[in-house]
Amino acid sequence: MSNYYPLNSQQAMEYVGKLGIFPDHSSLVCREIGDGNLNLVFHIKEKSAATGVIIKQALPYARVVGESWPLTLDRARIESEALIVHHCMCPGMVPKVYHYDPGLALTVMEDLSTHIILRKGLMARTAYPLFAKQIGSFLARTLLLTSDIVLDPLEKKNRMIQFSNPEMCKITEDLVFTDPYYDAETNRFNPLLDEEVKKIWGNDKLKYQIAKLKEKFLTHSQALIHGDLHTGSIMVTGNDLKVIDPEFAFYGPMGFDVGALFANLLLSYASQVGHSLSVEERKRKDYQNYLLNTIEQVWLAFEQEFRALWKEQAKEPTAAAKGYVDDYIMRILQDASGFAGCKMLRRVIGLAHVEDLESIEDLESRAKGEKLALGIGQQLVIKGDRIQNIKDITSLAKKVSSDG
Amino acid sequence: MSNYYPLNSQQAMEYVGKLGIFPDHSSLVCREIGDGNLNLVFHIKEKSAATGVIIKQALPYARVVGESWPLTLDRARIESEALIVHHCMCPGMVPKVYHYDPGLALTVMEDLSTHIILRKGLMARTAYPLFAKQIGSFLARTLLLTSDIVLDPLEKKNRMIQFSNPEMCKITEDLVFTDPYYDAETNRFNPLLDEEVKKIWGNDKLKYQIAKLKEKFLTHSQALIHGDLHTGSIMVTGNDLKVIDPEFAFYGPMGFDVGALFANLLLSYASQVGHSLSVEERKRKDYQNYLLNTIEQVWLAFEQEFRALWKEQAKEPTAAAKGYVDDYIMRILQDASGFAGCKMLRRVIGLAHVEDLESIEDLESRAKGEKLALGIGQQLVIKGDRIQNIKDITSLAKKVSSDG
Repeated sequence: MSNYYPLNSQQAMEYVGKLGIFPDHSSLVCREIGDGNLNLVFHIKEKSAATGVIIKQALPYARVVGESWPLTLDRARIESEALIVHHCMCPGMVPKVYHYDPGLALTVMEDLSTHIILRKGLMARTAYPLFAKQIGSFLARTLLLTSDIVLDPLEKKNRMIQFSNPEMCKITEDLVFTDPYYDAETNRFNPLLDEEVKKIWGNDKLKYQIAKLKEKFLTHSQALIHGDLHTGSIMVTGNDLKVIDPEFAFYGPMGFDVGALFANLLLSYASQVGHSLSVEERKRKDYQNYLLNTIEQVWLAFEQEFRALWKEQAKEPTAAAKGYVDDYIMRILQDASGFAGCKMLRRVIGLAHVEDLESIEDLESRAKGEKLALGIGQQLVIKGDRIQNIKDITSLAKKVSSDG
Repeated sequence: MSNYYPLNSQQAMEYVGKLGIFPDHSSLVCREIGDGNLNLVFHIKEKSAATGVIIKQALPYARVVGESWPLTLDRARIESEALIVHHCMCPGMVPKVYHYDPGLALTVMEDLSTHIILRKGLMARTAYPLFAKQIGSFLARTLLLTSDIVLDPLEKKNRMIQFSNPEMCKITEDLVFTDPYYDAETNRFNPLLDEEVKKIWGNDKLKYQIAKLKEKFLTHSQALIHGDLHTGSIMVTGNDLKVIDPEFAFYGPMGFDVGALFANLLLSYASQVGHSLSVEERKRKDYQNYLLNTIEQVWLAFEQEFRALWKEQAKEPTAAAKGYVDDYIMRILQDASGFAGCKMLRRVIGLAHVEDLESIEDLESRAKGEKLALGIGQQLVIKGDRIQNIKDITSLAKKVSSDG
């Protein structure tokens, strides 16, 4: 860390200028585009060009809700190395890494100005017809190809060390699995949810399942997972998809990535009921149906590609055992359900919320969406072990909606 | 490895002489007492003294059944560091480490000449009234205190790196979970078992469970386990117990250690029927009952200490969730059953056998014991998921005996 200093725009431009990415004597312009809470993000291009490159530099602290705590710069290494692994497995589905600088904790990577954050697209109720197939394939490839089923056992253990990420895991452990389930200082929630949240804190059956899910997150070194695969970590155009920001990557349970995605699609689903004042019912219902259908399609695409890859690429001798792949996939689905539930609950009760709900200014309206999210989240956690197919998850969401 | 050379007795004596363990000008004697297959073991003492010290030096290869393959010297580090961790948690229950030399891959440790290998004691049908309580406590302490339930999450992840042990794990992965289940070159078994073994190779239900157990071994980073806790890794006197040889230690499933112990007690149980020509039935039956009772007592001692420690020392906030500790313990028992089954099968079919059975020279007699071991082992694997308490395991052993 001795060489580390946070760049300003001028320094960022000079830094990139030396890398030989742009022709000599290019006339560069630089804009800082990050929110500066965790990272500095610079967009640098030739004056006349449409796109250029991104510099993402980790800051040695996290600034959340006015507070600031120290945060490892090693996450920049994790992110750049995970992007490289993902690129090998899913070429074109992550930003290209041009350069990584350990001393400055920065990565120079592909400019994605042509893409938008998926969450923004969902908030605008946009349909992405290719999305399910693309992300299903990304999940199947990145998860299965980094697991013991395909990797040489010695290499897998080396990868576990390479992607040991204790400080970033600790954030998830606290904010996803611990703090939302008691009256923790980090929590913040809509005061209209007081009663609901207190019920959650007193729900022993729920907390028992949360304990088991946290244990899985802590102990199940199954695959190199993205670790933070919400709809803000995915960028899209009408036909392209890129998965960004794998700074939480580590060897963990496959279901955590699948569940994170489901949770965020379901948060968008739940947010629709909060818009009842401003958007006609038909539009909201249609988009809810689109989202549930997308969840089903993501799972089907995931399962199809996972089975095909297993057949083609499994090197683990036990992989051929009769019934094993079916059981393996079923356990991913059940884990995904439980993790999706945790992730929904924490986005309403815990420190970090989602814009889908947060953008609803009227607290009463927002509470409607949040209550639905809490309802679905709890059911996913409690019934996770008994989920048998993807329709059990989407039906459960519909049932909670109509019961509510 | 550049400084490494294997010591001879003279060099071993000179090496110890310089450590200041013995008074200056002591007159030392040295005897090599290992079998030289994996390690050199020297016993060094003052001429007139009863006890001295042990030097254990790893060899850069393993010599098994005439073959020789390269084997990491890092296992000497793993062993000495695991002994130190175990000593902190269970003072007096492992040999004291006096000195560790990474370059020579050797550890100077406490002399246990006063103790015998437990397996030898079992072969002589000796009863050890304190054994169950001692080993139950060792298991509870070493497993729970190195888990996420007690350790700080950052420290646990650092320990996972410290005890990353891929080459030694690979040996277990191959010899316990893979090779015994097909016609592998490494296998060797009594020709009178041909039919039984072929049935095992064709048993899909069994191989499905084996695949899941292997997955658990590969992915479940639950605690720092000994990794090879058979009755040859335990030394005893009438009232003392020491656990030795943790060179397979790594972060794995708790049930693997518990299961290894159960397997080896059950192998001794099974071996009794092989002695029907030479030992009267009453004696053999009594010892079988003693062994099953010991298994029950080990588990009860383990569970009691585990619950007490959980109550006193759990730092993981979710540990208090209602019903969680019960579920946690139940899963250890079920895992132990499955792993015990694998371990029994591999000791009959695979590369490394146990003296309990191997010492029966008459192949017909030995096959009787081996068939019982295969019968119990298969049932433990297949029924592992449904085991509800320790008596389910001992009853199962009795039932297979009487059915056989």
